[in-house]
Amino acid sequence: MTIFVDMDEVIADAYNAHIEIYNREFNAQLKLEDCHGKEVWQCVPDDHQTSIKKHAQRIGFFRDLEVIPDSQQVLKELSEKYEVYIASAAMEFPNSLKEKSDWLDKFFPFIPWQNRILCGHKFILKGDVLIDDRSRNLHNFEGRSIMFTSPHNINTNGFERAGNWLEIANKLL
Amino acid sequence: MTIFVDMDEVIADAYNAHIEIYNREFNAQLKLEDCHGKEVWQCVPDDHQTSIKKHAQRIGFFRDLEVIPDSQQVLKELSEKYEVYIASAAMEFPNSLKEKSDWLDKFFPFIPWQNRILCGHKFILKGDVLIDDRSRNLHNFEGRSIMFTSPHNINTNGFERAGNWLEIANKLL
Repeated sequence: MTIFVDMDEVIADAYNAHIEIYNREFNAQLKLEDCHGKEVWQCVPDDHQTSIKKHAQRIGFFRDLEVIPDSQQVLKELSEKYEVYIASAAMEFPNSLKEKSDWLDKFFPFIPWQNRILCGHKFILKGDVLIDDRSRNLHNFEGRSIMFTSPHNINTNGFERAGNWLEIANKLL
Repeated sequence: MTIFVDMDEVIADAYNAHIEIYNREFNAQLKLEDCHGKEVWQCVPDDHQTSIKKHAQRIGFFRDLEVIPDSQQVLKELSEKYEVYIASAAMEFPNSLKEKSDWLDKFFPFIPWQNRILCGHKFILKGDVLIDDRSRNLHNFEGRSIMFTSPHNINTNGFERAGNWLEIANKLL
């Protein structure tokens, strides 16, 4: 079985990083619970939105992301049993490419370079399972699509869901 | 129709870059015709081979590659008619990732980020045609595999071949 796993919001916590940077730079008190059902930039005043939308272009943004809880242990076990690939739509942000490779070296060294994919469209991936937080990626995947719950997607319907990595373990291990 | 196109030896001339760097640094006179049927490192004395094998790790190596003749014009026409993706097994060399993205911006701006893939194994790609110089990539592709002729593969049998981009145009346009 071949499993593709997205990075941001699935194994790397970009959402909380956006909130932290925003609060620090705008002296704000935005909280995760304020953001349910929205992108982070939708939760702030209009004239602050451009700043948040540019976070992903910054040097260091992807290098410093926290790991999503339990993703390391569950992916380690999955990778011992199945073909596990990391697939990130990272080509939009060229500065992120090496940072993402380095981040995987640090936190997911058991996923070798042969099993890492930085891409754009994900419907060109051939495999059995895709774990992703974006409906646009899950929609056109030929196999089993699992939506990993993230603040921005909690109101999205129509997909099999996993709320955390222990639920992924229950489904696939 | 979805077409995947490799970078090195197909649209980017890494082979001649290896020879140029080697000749410059070792004051040598290696020529392309000395290399038929071999990797560049196989064409030099044993104690020079490690140096050539490390070229791909250097900052700037992939940024400065020449474009393979006619690849721009033919890929432009192909991309107007079909879904064209660039797919490079670049994850082995993390320093190359941004350089490859920048190189594509410069020489193939008509291939948008959504259609660029930096990966390892290529058998996870789902599509109709793969144009590549490596038999290991062509072997396991589910669609039509076209071997793009490069000095190192001229003695490899068993694949449909294209000797240059005008032959690709004849086959696919």
